[in-house]
Amino acid sequence: MSNFQPTKADKFTFGLWTVGWQGVDPFGTFIRPPLDPVEAVTRLAELGAAGVTFHDNDLIPFGAEPPERQRLIDRFRTALEETGMTTPMVTTNLFYHPVFKDGAFTSNDRDIRRFAVGKTLRNIDLAASLGAKTYVCWGGREGAESDAATDVRVALDRYKEAIDTLCRYIREQGYDLKLALEPKPNEPRGDIFLATVGHALAFINQLEFPDMVGLNPEVGHETMAGLNFVHGVAQALWSGKLFHIDLNGQHGIKFDQDLRFGAADQKGAFFLVDLLESAGYDGPRHFDFKPPRTEDIDGVWESAAGCMRNYLVFKEKAAAFRADPAVQEAIAASRLPELAVSTLDPGESLTALRDDALSFDADKAAERGMHYERLDQLALDHLFGIR
Amino acid sequence: MSNFQPTKADKFTFGLWTVGWQGVDPFGTFIRPPLDPVEAVTRLAELGAAGVTFHDNDLIPFGAEPPERQRLIDRFRTALEETGMTTPMVTTNLFYHPVFKDGAFTSNDRDIRRFAVGKTLRNIDLAASLGAKTYVCWGGREGAESDAATDVRVALDRYKEAIDTLCRYIREQGYDLKLALEPKPNEPRGDIFLATVGHALAFINQLEFPDMVGLNPEVGHETMAGLNFVHGVAQALWSGKLFHIDLNGQHGIKFDQDLRFGAADQKGAFFLVDLLESAGYDGPRHFDFKPPRTEDIDGVWESAAGCMRNYLVFKEKAAAFRADPAVQEAIAASRLPELAVSTLDPGESLTALRDDALSFDADKAAERGMHYERLDQLALDHLFGIR
Amino acid sequence: MSNFQPTKADKFTFGLWTVGWQGVDPFGTFIRPPLDPVEAVTRLAELGAAGVTFHDNDLIPFGAEPPERQRLIDRFRTALEETGMTTPMVTTNLFYHPVFKDGAFTSNDRDIRRFAVGKTLRNIDLAASLGAKTYVCWGGREGAESDAATDVRVALDRYKEAIDTLCRYIREQGYDLKLALEPKPNEPRGDIFLATVGHALAFINQLEFPDMVGLNPEVGHETMAGLNFVHGVAQALWSGKLFHIDLNGQHGIKFDQDLRFGAADQKGAFFLVDLLESAGYDGPRHFDFKPPRTEDIDGVWESAAGCMRNYLVFKEKAAAFRADPAVQEAIAASRLPELAVSTLDPGESLTALRDDALSFDADKAAERGMHYERLDQLALDHLFGIR
Amino acid sequence: MSNFQPTKADKFTFGLWTVGWQGVDPFGTFIRPPLDPVEAVTRLAELGAAGVTFHDNDLIPFGAEPPERQRLIDRFRTALEETGMTTPMVTTNLFYHPVFKDGAFTSNDRDIRRFAVGKTLRNIDLAASLGAKTYVCWGGREGAESDAATDVRVALDRYKEAIDTLCRYIREQGYDLKLALEPKPNEPRGDIFLATVGHALAFINQLEFPDMVGLNPEVGHETMAGLNFVHGVAQALWSGKLFHIDLNGQHGIKFDQDLRFGAADQKGAFFLVDLLESAGYDGPRHFDFKPPRTEDIDGVWESAAGCMRNYLVFKEKAAAFRADPAVQEAIAASRLPELAVSTLDPGESLTALRDDALSFDADKAAERGMHYERLDQLALDHLFGIR
Repeated sequence: MSNFQPTKADKFTFGLWTVGWQGVDPFGTFIRPPLDPVEAVTRLAELGAAGVTFHDNDLIPFGAEPPERQRLIDRFRTALEETGMTTPMVTTNLFYHPVFKDGAFTSNDRDIRRFAVGKTLRNIDLAASLGAKTYVCWGGREGAESDAATDVRVALDRYKEAIDTLCRYIREQGYDLKLALEPKPNEPRGDIFLATVGHALAFINQLEFPDMVGLNPEVGHETMAGLNFVHGVAQALWSGKLFHIDLNGQHGIKFDQDLRFGAADQKGAFFLVDLLESAGYDGPRHFDFKPPRTEDIDGVWESAAGCMRNYLVFKEKAAAFRADPAVQEAIAASRLPELAVSTLDPGESLTALRDDALSFDADKAAERGMHYERLDQLALDHLFGIR
Repeated sequence: MSNFQPTKADKFTFGLWTVGWQGVDPFGTFIRPPLDPVEAVTRLAELGAAGVTFHDNDLIPFGAEPPERQRLIDRFRTALEETGMTTPMVTTNLFYHPVFKDGAFTSNDRDIRRFAVGKTLRNIDLAASLGAKTYVCWGGREGAESDAATDVRVALDRYKEAIDTLCRYIREQGYDLKLALEPKPNEPRGDIFLATVGHALAFINQLEFPDMVGLNPEVGHETMAGLNFVHGVAQALWSGKLFHIDLNGQHGIKFDQDLRFGAADQKGAFFLVDLLESAGYDGPRHFDFKPPRTEDIDGVWESAAGCMRNYLVFKEKAAAFRADPAVQEAIAASRLPELAVSTLDPGESLTALRDDALSFDADKAAERGMHYERLDQLALDHLFGIR
Repeated sequence: MSNFQPTKADKFTFGLWTVGWQGVDPFGTFIRPPLDPVEAVTRLAELGAAGVTFHDNDLIPFGAEPPERQRLIDRFRTALEETGMTTPMVTTNLFYHPVFKDGAFTSNDRDIRRFAVGKTLRNIDLAASLGAKTYVCWGGREGAESDAATDVRVALDRYKEAIDTLCRYIREQGYDLKLALEPKPNEPRGDIFLATVGHALAFINQLEFPDMVGLNPEVGHETMAGLNFVHGVAQALWSGKLFHIDLNGQHGIKFDQDLRFGAADQKGAFFLVDLLESAGYDGPRHFDFKPPRTEDIDGVWESAAGCMRNYLVFKEKAAAFRADPAVQEAIAASRLPELAVSTLDPGESLTALRDDALSFDADKAAERGMHYERLDQLALDHLFGIR
Repeated sequence: MSNFQPTKADKFTFGLWTVGWQGVDPFGTFIRPPLDPVEAVTRLAELGAAGVTFHDNDLIPFGAEPPERQRLIDRFRTALEETGMTTPMVTTNLFYHPVFKDGAFTSNDRDIRRFAVGKTLRNIDLAASLGAKTYVCWGGREGAESDAATDVRVALDRYKEAIDTLCRYIREQGYDLKLALEPKPNEPRGDIFLATVGHALAFINQLEFPDMVGLNPEVGHETMAGLNFVHGVAQALWSGKLFHIDLNGQHGIKFDQDLRFGAADQKGAFFLVDLLESAGYDGPRHFDFKPPRTEDIDGVWESAAGCMRNYLVFKEKAAAFRADPAVQEAIAASRLPELAVSTLDPGESLTALRDDALSFDADKAAERGMHYERLDQLALDHLFGIR
């Protein structure tokens, strides 16, 4: 058994806003003092992380003057260099300031939309200068509380215009940067556009540069719609669109909890890591969690360390699961390998296939058991460390 | 005020399985006797419907011999002719027989997948012969209870192969028929593939003949994931993929209720009809509901009539809402029309747009109210009939 | 048709924190300036409200010095007198300050629990001096994110101790004041103790002075657990425990929305008002909502006015529904009046009842329809104003 | 590490309807042949179970003639004797036959209510004769789809009358039998009365013989309302009302899944077993699950064995967790033991307590961290078997 101690090779990254979350929620004020981004970089490096990510305003206060902005960037860059940390992803805060209360790229007010796009372009410059390869767009305020208050089709036109514009800018500037959309069903808006992995994938297909745009799905967001996150990530992979991923925990359908990775639905987390590792996903393992308000700064680091530890635990267990001959036997008994065989023979006549159905003994075929309970229990045995 | 009496011009259709539902649920046996499809056609025609739809096994028992099959089709066709009813949509039952217990197009067993495709091809012939224009595919058993029990990416390969095969067959036969996929998040499977409108739209983009395939979204299914159905339908329309629609009612996230249309979330239903009518959707208004088990056959017809009545009520109210000068004024106050204006000027420089953001007075812009509460209350006033 | 203009006789009340909500949410800062409580009283009086309610810190900042405290109370009292407004309910803020981050009455730290009780006692004095008859206890921070982090049975001991102490103090001081517990399933805690109407009712039965304690159920809170609020309120009434009520709107299971009353689930709101009015509930109709962040101060007043308007609309429609001969006929057809008849005859032998079951013709009895669809559609017709 | 092989001392019991479930669901027919109750008893005994439970109609078909009834009871009793199995709990099927479509104890039809009570009394005789100590009442059909269709307060009167009658009968007959109510929020009814642990506990307090009535909470049912089952069981224990328990698995808020115990929310299951064992619960560990439709009869037994195995795994891990010095240290750091200390001193003056609050340094106290993340991660480490 390993010691589950992360290293940079594990590609674990954290948003500055995660360990830096001060704990403001709808019913209470901040419970922790501000965390200096440099301190965050240093401590996360010590814990074994490979990089950090940020919204523009995690690093640079909204409306900061250029010299102050530059000073903050410089000391951040220095911290990165001194720790060997990277910033593989950057994103924009288009939700905190009241100007975005009705959306950013889809605000009814054209000047606000223009400001939102401009703010993003400016931060894309910073992202590129820091070597980021992925730029995440979470449209947390793009949505509505009342169906009277918007026209979704027109809003999607504007959403597309904004994303197309970002892509065009990246191409103009020659940046090596891709966009990753982050879906969420609701909160802070009553309903958010691009509600799930599926809605965002579908949207990408309508864009001007679909190859430049993929997804940044988040465990908690998909779970908030009661959807199976493993299925969502698998469809994103199947579509070639898993550009980045947000790992955390969520106890089912309720407010956005952002628990540490592994803290909820352990079997689901196990199969998620199993999927990422077996599919050869090689991007950052990015934690987007919130250390609970009950924690002081020591608890913050415990929580961050737990995210990485749990990932490594699941990774080791998933490898053991796949290597276990009993598992392989159970998979064979379930005929899962047969799913990979084409349903049709090459060049087969469709009318013949149709007519064959008349003579199929369905009652007989129905008698076969799938033996999934055995397989699922083997997964639990591995998860529990009792095999 | 109209009398809300439907006519064939309203394009209301019902599945044979709706009024014919006998009431078997997970905890109880049937509470109503079988309903003859001919009786269903006759009574629905009298109530004002324009057509009926069916799964193959709603009309023809699983495994029926060809002469019996022909006899059943003939008397059904006669009933249609005598009542002037149409069958604009047909679908396949790939879920009731135990052979489909682990899926049809994505069963691990290749022979079952072949049978499922063949059964569908055969019924497509019937659909075409009856003049149907839409063939719905609801993959209710395509899914899993355990993440160990499937490989979603491979399952999507097989799902795609099946849908591609159906399209190829339709083209070979020269039928004037399109496919409409029906998403659902769960039930009867723990998780179903193509869980939402979004996931199904995204899947279509990976198909061989994407133009032949669209959606048949259902009110209740999207609501079971806590998603806003109006938003989902709007994205389907925006993508040119609203091929058909299933109207019913559902009280939030729980088991699939299939209540009569309008029985739950009245404001949502109002805005759905508003969207369908204003977007010029001209397909069938198809009711996929289940008359509750508390009802005898009289209650079945009351329930079916209620579906149509409520649609007409919402349609009249939505038209009045849009025509109301106070509504138009409130919409103008919300600057919703400004959402239709391009965010960028034609040929605008992106670097200039970026730099403009520096001088934007965000605090000032943030002061503007959106006046959505007024607009939403006007919608309620129309819904309540008090304006 | 009435004009739905509220008057003081309608007993509509609002929390100062509702119209005064500044819009801080988990992803954004305040979007409206502070609202002076005196302004709130004045404007609500103009709109037709009968009273206001408050948490101690809505009126008096946390930690205010006694003279400042007195000054704020005095000018508030003057505003009440000048407008004829009352304060029928008062409550304590035991959630905003970081000291309550792990609970108040159930914090692990005894000194924090003592502070929480003391803070409440002090505010009970104020409540009594203002003539309030109900003191609400919402334990929003009494809960946990991890089952490792608490011992629910011990926490309930402390919760009981705190409520018993409040009761004892009220008796000692001779105040004419009752307590009303407000259940909520989650948010801001992962899980909150006394999660639903049922859990809180059950808790009351374990208290020292159960007669002094009842409920303040909230539409949104019960809806967040997917429960039927009308059923919950009915059980509270049945138990003699509906001491107060929080009216608002919530679109199903998601974060706490606090929409204006009537904005979601219109039929449910209609039946809620029908129940309150027909049960003779004579307490305040208290709105606990949040004007959406999209609104400026004009929208705040529109939203508050909408709450009252919708209540009056439902009240008028419910009365018409109950008076409609067609409704009465449908109710009779459903044999609902028979539910009020005792199942047993007076003094009936239980063994005879048992043996009678052997000869009951269940198949025959099962044939009766309940005709609920007709009845439910009549309710919709009244809701829509088309009868 | 033990081998997790159950014995009768573990008190594991199964409903006949669990392993005997034939797989009928809302969209499909049965997939497994009927299972002889004698076979169920024999196989479960071999697997290590201690007993079985049943609804009357699991053993005796609805309407069976007395001689056939006696024959079925006799051979069942023989099987119990030969295997040393017990029947610690028995219940009534008041949901399958169409006569119960609108409820049993709360049906509008008085003759149906009388039949339901009589059917139950008759089965209570059988339960007592088999030595059962607990009689479960699950009112799965007591509920409504429309708020127009019932009067909850009157329905609760009838519900109470029925339960009071059962109690009176048990007393008359001198049986050593208690009742256990089983809450559920919905399915098969749109909303079910006594929706949660809380609602049922509150109802008990209104009964004629409250001491004779407790709860039979079920993992899945409470989870279907998004509630924390550990919290619910803890409140039932705190109220002295945990008479029986139904163990299974459920992936959050959706249709009733009845997965095998441990298959979902592993950390929640771990803490549930931790609670049951540490609270000294000594009743049956009863599994109410459904082997998935994908399974043949071999899979049924795998699934049943998995339920017991997982319970024993959690039990061993929970004991190790509680014995771990690092856990004890983390609990101490969280001041959880301080929660067991009375908040007030004995005989303390309440006015002094009130006035003390004025001088409390809340900001200082707020600085303390709770260290719950460390504690929760230790629980995960034990769950994963990596400590």
